[in-house]
Amino acid sequence: MGSSIHPVILCGGSGTRLWPRSRASRPKPFLPLVGHRTLFEQSLDRVANRSVFAAPTIVAGKAHRELVREQSGDVEGLAMIEEPFGRNTAPAIALAAHRAGEDAILLVCPSDHHIADAPAFAAAAETAAALAGEGWLVAFGIEPTRPETGYGYIKRGENIGGGFAIERFVEKPDAARAEQFLADGGYSWNGGIFCFRAGTYLEELARQRPDMAAAVERSVAGGQEADGIFHPDAEAFAAIEGESIDYAVMEGTERAAMVPVSMGWSDIGNWQALREALDADANGNVTRGRSELVDCRNVMVQSDGPRVSAIGIEDIIIVVDGDEVLVTTADGAQAVGKLAGASGQ
Amino acid sequence: MGSSIHPVILCGGSGTRLWPRSRASRPKPFLPLVGHRTLFEQSLDRVANRSVFAAPTIVAGKAHRELVREQSGDVEGLAMIEEPFGRNTAPAIALAAHRAGEDAILLVCPSDHHIADAPAFAAAAETAAALAGEGWLVAFGIEPTRPETGYGYIKRGENIGGGFAIERFVEKPDAARAEQFLADGGYSWNGGIFCFRAGTYLEELARQRPDMAAAVERSVAGGQEADGIFHPDAEAFAAIEGESIDYAVMEGTERAAMVPVSMGWSDIGNWQALREALDADANGNVTRGRSELVDCRNVMVQSDGPRVSAIGIEDIIIVVDGDEVLVTTADGAQAVGKLAGASGQ
Repeated sequence: MGSSIHPVILCGGSGTRLWPRSRASRPKPFLPLVGHRTLFEQSLDRVANRSVFAAPTIVAGKAHRELVREQSGDVEGLAMIEEPFGRNTAPAIALAAHRAGEDAILLVCPSDHHIADAPAFAAAAETAAALAGEGWLVAFGIEPTRPETGYGYIKRGENIGGGFAIERFVEKPDAARAEQFLADGGYSWNGGIFCFRAGTYLEELARQRPDMAAAVERSVAGGQEADGIFHPDAEAFAAIEGESIDYAVMEGTERAAMVPVSMGWSDIGNWQALREALDADANGNVTRGRSELVDCRNVMVQSDGPRVSAIGIEDIIIVVDGDEVLVTTADGAQAVGKLAGASGQ
Repeated sequence: MGSSIHPVILCGGSGTRLWPRSRASRPKPFLPLVGHRTLFEQSLDRVANRSVFAAPTIVAGKAHRELVREQSGDVEGLAMIEEPFGRNTAPAIALAAHRAGEDAILLVCPSDHHIADAPAFAAAAETAAALAGEGWLVAFGIEPTRPETGYGYIKRGENIGGGFAIERFVEKPDAARAEQFLADGGYSWNGGIFCFRAGTYLEELARQRPDMAAAVERSVAGGQEADGIFHPDAEAFAAIEGESIDYAVMEGTERAAMVPVSMGWSDIGNWQALREALDADANGNVTRGRSELVDCRNVMVQSDGPRVSAIGIEDIIIVVDGDEVLVTTADGAQAVGKLAGASGQ
C-alpha cells in the first residue's frame, strides 16, 4: 500500500439547471437527488475508507458553511477551507494543495455528481494515485455511453502503464463529432475528477498562471484558522481572476494523463440527467413525492409536498418545490437555468 | 310586453372535471373561471334586467348556502330553495315550479355554464317565453360549432313560429354521427336551458312521473320558510328517485319545442373547454396566475399562487390549486373527474 490519497471535495456548484429544487440557499450538492443521502454526503461516502483515503478537505463558500457542517458532521479529521468568493476550480484546488502540503496526493472531486459504482471509483483513484506519484496530473476519463454534446472530451494518447498520456482536451462537440468520438473509442468524458501531487499542481500553476499562483499563496499566508475552518485572506483572494483547472493547468501541461473508468457516472447536470440516473417503472415513469399518473409515459415527477396528478402526457418533467412549479420537456431541461425563477427573480 | 320571465337557477353541479380548482366545498358555479365574476354571478347578471326577468329563484344544496348568499347578496327579491339532498334536475325544477305558481313562465338555467353573448341569450329567452305561453316546453337549441361528442343533441322538427317542435332528443353521438349532425344542420346541442309555464311542467311531470310529482308535492306542502330560504320536507324529498328533466319530462312529452340560439355558449365541462372559452395569446397560450412560458404553444396555466415555469411544451394544461397540481393533455382533461384527488381521496 502506498501513501494515502487526500480527497479534496469542491462545493462551488450552484446547480441552477436543477431549479426550483436547487436554490441559492440550498444548492445541488446538498440535495438528496439520488437515494436518501445528498450528493455531497455520497461524495464523502465514496472516500470513507481510511485505509485508502485520508480525511477529506472540503472547499466551500461561506453561504454553505452550515450545510457542510450538518452533512459532514460525523467525518473525523475533516478539513474545511472557506472561500471568501467563488473563483472557479483552479484557485480552490490551489488553496487545498497549499494546506495539504506538497507531497500529498490529492484527489479532486466535485461534490455534485452521482457515481453508481463506488468500487470502480476507488479502483480508478488508486490507479490515478500511482501515476500521480510519478509526477503525472491525472484526469479521470469517463467511458462515454452516448454521443453526449454537453461534456468536454479527453483524447487518450500513449499508454503509460495503468493509464494514458492525454493527447488533447476537446471542447463540447456538436452532435456529429460526438457520434464520431463514441465510434472512435479513444475519447472519454472529462468528469472533472483529477489526481496529482499537490506540489506538481502548484508548480504547473506557477508556470502557467503565475499571478494566480502568487495571489493564492498570499491568500494562504495571510489566512487564519478559526473554529476548525481555514479562512484565506479575502483581499488577496479577491484579486484572483477565476478560472477552471482545465484551462489554467490541465490543457497547458506536458504531464497530463488519464485513467479510463466506467463507474455509472452522471453530473446530474439537469432534470433530464437526473431522470436518467433514477430507476423508472414499466412505463418509464419516475416519481418522488405524492403523485397519480394515468396514461403517462417517460414522465418524471418530483414534488416536495403537493400531489401531482397527470393524465396522458409523455416525456415531461414536473418539479414542484415550495412556491415554484416547473414543467418541461427533456430538451427544455437544458434551458432551466435561464428561467427568471432560476436566476432569483 | 308579456308577463315577465321567472328565472330558476340550478346550483347542483359539482364540476369534478374541473378539479383541483373545483372542489366539494367550492364547486364550479362559484368560481370565477371566465372573467372576474363567477359563473353563478354571471348567471344572475344575464337575468338582471327586471323589465324582462323577475327576480330569480335559486335551487341549491345546504352545503353551498353561504356561497349563494355571498355571491347573490345584492339581488333584490331573490328566492332560495334549499334541497336537503341532490336528486338531479327534474325534482329541483318541480320545487321551483310549485313555489312560483302555475302561471309563472319559468326559465331554467344551469349556474355553471358560460354564455359570451348575453343579448342573444335574452332574445332567445323572450322567444322561448312566448312559446311557453302557448303551452310548449321549450329547450334552448345551441347551434353546434364543432362535431362535439360530449353533448346530447336535439333534432328540430316542424316550424311552429319563433321556434321548432322537437322531432327527437339524441344521446351523445360517436364522432361519425356528430360529423353527420353538424353537416345536416337540423341538430342543435341540448344546453340544459328550458322555458315553460310552471303548470305545464307540473302536469307533464304528474303524467310521466307520478311518484316523483307526488313526492315533490308532499315535500313542498310539508316544507317551511326560514331565514329567507324555503326548506322542502326532507323525508318526502329523500324518497324521490333522482332523474334529469331530459329523461323525466322532455323526452316523453308531445309538447317539446326548441328555440335555436347562437350565443357563444360553453358548459365549461372540463379544463379543455375552459381553455377554449378564454382568449389565447399569439402562441395559443392562456395563463392565469404567475407564470413564465418559454417555447410553449397551446398551453394553459391556472395557478392560485405558485409560479408555473414551463419550457418547450405543447398542448398541455397545468392547474395549481392549494396542495394539488394537475398536468394533462386536452384529451386527458375528460378523465380528470376519475382521478383520486377529484373523488376526494
